[in-house]
Amino acid sequence: MAKMKLFYSPASPYVRKVMVLAHEAGLEKKIETVAVMVTPVKANPDVAKRNPLMKIPALIDGDTTVYDSPVVCEYLDSKHRGKKLFPAKGKARWTALRQQALADGLLDAALLVRYEVTLRPENLRNAEWHAGQMGKIGAAIDQMEKEAGSLKGAPTIGQITFGCALGYLDFRFADYDWRKSHKKLATWFEKFSKRPSMKATVPAMPV
Amino acid sequence: MAKMKLFYSPASPYVRKVMVLAHEAGLEKKIETVAVMVTPVKANPDVAKRNPLMKIPALIDGDTTVYDSPVVCEYLDSKHRGKKLFPAKGKARWTALRQQALADGLLDAALLVRYEVTLRPENLRNAEWHAGQMGKIGAAIDQMEKEAGSLKGAPTIGQITFGCALGYLDFRFADYDWRKSHKKLATWFEKFSKRPSMKATVPAMPV
Repeated sequence: MAKMKLFYSPASPYVRKVMVLAHEAGLEKKIETVAVMVTPVKANPDVAKRNPLMKIPALIDGDTTVYDSPVVCEYLDSKHRGKKLFPAKGKARWTALRQQALADGLLDAALLVRYEVTLRPENLRNAEWHAGQMGKIGAAIDQMEKEAGSLKGAPTIGQITFGCALGYLDFRFADYDWRKSHKKLATWFEKFSKRPSMKATVPAMPV
Repeated sequence: MAKMKLFYSPASPYVRKVMVLAHEAGLEKKIETVAVMVTPVKANPDVAKRNPLMKIPALIDGDTTVYDSPVVCEYLDSKHRGKKLFPAKGKARWTALRQQALADGLLDAALLVRYEVTLRPENLRNAEWHAGQMGKIGAAIDQMEKEAGSLKGAPTIGQITFGCALGYLDFRFADYDWRKSHKKLATWFEKFSKRPSMKATVPAMPV
């Protein structure tokens, strides 16, 4: 059977979610990663053919293309017979999906900060915008700390996204010492980071 | 039974998705809208208590809180016994979820443009950023046009999001004449806009 193709970057936290889920689900060998570079200020025609939003991840499986990362993750979760990472229904499902949205929202804010300080010329940067996005990051981590005690049992897409969001902060916001005042979350993350799925997907600069 | 509470603005296209779905599902009378103002540069503590990302929509149902809009929509879709707006599985589900992501992505780009030209001081605006986001909007509409012929049958969350995205362009980008070169999509939207769910939720400025 032909492999699925995943538009990929080793630095993208949204791609990492997909790869962590793929490892947890035993699907990683069924995915061929296609390394691409995307940035909001330069169109990538190869990606655009499959995802007009020109964002990654996007997954191509035969004549099916899916994006964005929550859809790719749920799609892959439907393709294996092991323990599901998306709980099927009820409170467990809403908690996992809300946690995914919380940590994805943290990442959305973190990416906007990155774009502000890397893509935008220095004389066009806006301190209020920057502070507003950092405020969202801080509030999201505070909420994650409140929920850290409940992050038990088999991993869910919520836990995976928490892990990828915190891993991204360590990768791109290394000076942001979130551990100091979020000790339960730090303890959880230390343990979660030891999973083979997380160790196989540590963020890296594209080569 | 206590009503669900929805953090709400009549101008938010993501809130509109939720309200359109609620109308289609016959749930609109079970939802109490709570009007709030949110902007990325000013924290809203009332919203933050329930959604640390300080975005809308967020839905509170007893001790359950859900966000972001795809999660709120799927949650509501689980709360009624009529025809589901989220297809349960298979190709229909992946198409609907991808279409939702496509039109939400158009909206994400449109909101970033709005923030650029309304929130950011004029001397700090970046033409490249603006053009990059407008490029995503254009590419997304091109893709929607390609899919317009397939938008038939009972509405899905994909169709609802297409409708809310196009409605938002008419509301906030009135000079952007997307209809001229997207005639199939324009025809579809004209018809879809006549649904009671769409007519009941036409965007408006907050009072």
